[in-house]
Amino acid sequence: MVRCQACWQTSFVVPNSAPDVAWQQIPRTRAYELVINQIENQILAGALKVGDQLPAERDLAAKLGVSRAAVREAMRAMEAQGVVRSGVGFGPDSGTFLTSLPSKALTQFLRLHMALANFPIDDVVETRIMLERWSARLAAKQSSADDLATMRRLLDEMDAERDDIEAFNELDTDFHVAMAEAAHNVLITEMTTAIRHSMRAMVLESFRTHGHWHELSDQLRAQHRAIYEAIAAGDSRRAADEVEEHLRSANASLGWGATG
Amino acid sequence: MVRCQACWQTSFVVPNSAPDVAWQQIPRTRAYELVINQIENQILAGALKVGDQLPAERDLAAKLGVSRAAVREAMRAMEAQGVVRSGVGFGPDSGTFLTSLPSKALTQFLRLHMALANFPIDDVVETRIMLERWSARLAAKQSSADDLATMRRLLDEMDAERDDIEAFNELDTDFHVAMAEAAHNVLITEMTTAIRHSMRAMVLESFRTHGHWHELSDQLRAQHRAIYEAIAAGDSRRAADEVEEHLRSANASLGWGATG
Repeated sequence: MVRCQACWQTSFVVPNSAPDVAWQQIPRTRAYELVINQIENQILAGALKVGDQLPAERDLAAKLGVSRAAVREAMRAMEAQGVVRSGVGFGPDSGTFLTSLPSKALTQFLRLHMALANFPIDDVVETRIMLERWSARLAAKQSSADDLATMRRLLDEMDAERDDIEAFNELDTDFHVAMAEAAHNVLITEMTTAIRHSMRAMVLESFRTHGHWHELSDQLRAQHRAIYEAIAAGDSRRAADEVEEHLRSANASLGWGATG
Repeated sequence: MVRCQACWQTSFVVPNSAPDVAWQQIPRTRAYELVINQIENQILAGALKVGDQLPAERDLAAKLGVSRAAVREAMRAMEAQGVVRSGVGFGPDSGTFLTSLPSKALTQFLRLHMALANFPIDDVVETRIMLERWSARLAAKQSSADDLATMRRLLDEMDAERDDIEAFNELDTDFHVAMAEAAHNVLITEMTTAIRHSMRAMVLESFRTHGHWHELSDQLRAQHRAIYEAIAAGDSRRAADEVEEHLRSANASLGWGATG
């Protein structure tokens, strides 16, 4: 057998006479990934739940036999997934807790992948239409008096803030989130919220440079009212159609997305 | 004014005679978050794209005036979002690259939040029905000959592997992913894939403990064929209804989710 002179650097040197077997690289699992796996196992076993504080970095590192840096890296990865929140300082909020912040994590996820063009804008707009049609349909079937009151309040506030583009954009976002919440499906709400939030800067920029803001805002406010009326009337098909019409025409007015 | 003795540790000491103004905590942005922001800005400015290698940890730390640990934490957070991939070793694959691995990131995201019960299983199943109805409808309208051939091949392989529960589960996953891919919307495909993958262990466990595997597998294979036939016939409404029927009845057979 040929002596491996540089195994530390390349890989094993296979002798010419060896049978033709395929060498498979052994997947290298990094220490921080093992930390995540251990925490996930504890969650699945029911030993950890939302609100629980994780052991301090030093203790966790000792328990798992890894470096403190590996624990810290695992915490950053889990923070990015919205399942861990690290407090700062010395008070009762310091320390690392299991949490439920999916929409913050999803928003950053979408923003980064959209920026990298991993998700074409037309695909994101179509996904938004799918999500909001579904929400509008369910909201029409099952929204509570409180859900309807929230939507009505936001419509009134949009009327009042029609001259303030930034405030209008926030209220517009809140209206779509309120409709999603009225559908009472947590995952769909989080995805709807994340898509609208990830588009916030883009929408604001489009509003600002539109040129005919008052006409656009009149149109948007009328469409929001039409969606609300269909939901309040319990007409799920009309609610879904109104929201699709709103998203398509708004996108067309803003000059981006879903041109098909 | 009372002298602040310990400003470095607590916060400002407000004198009793001060007017009643609300003190707002200054949000503390951590070094690793600033690193992420800088990278995101470079992406948005078009200076970085998928496939590009990021500067080495040491160089990036020096450029941004932060510690190497902060850079490493930022990389872990971005890895968890599926936008960065770190190679290992010394070869041409070593180093850190911008990438497009959204479904891996979404799968872990969903698995963790489902484990923490942040997303109730019924909500996840309903979301899956929404996604797959949409995919089936679009697949019926626009699937290519290649898309259809992939689905047909997977159906045949499921027939061949009907006795091997694990292989069947993989092919079942692949079929649903192939249908999503035939709809040609990247974001919807990634979400469908992530939901199916995040349920993989649960589905496998249900298959194993079902007790009447052959009847279940016969039912699943017949339903997959019915979905395929509707897509191949270009009947978008029937395709959507078949996939919903399949998911609801499979869930009922397996005894979890979407009981409504």
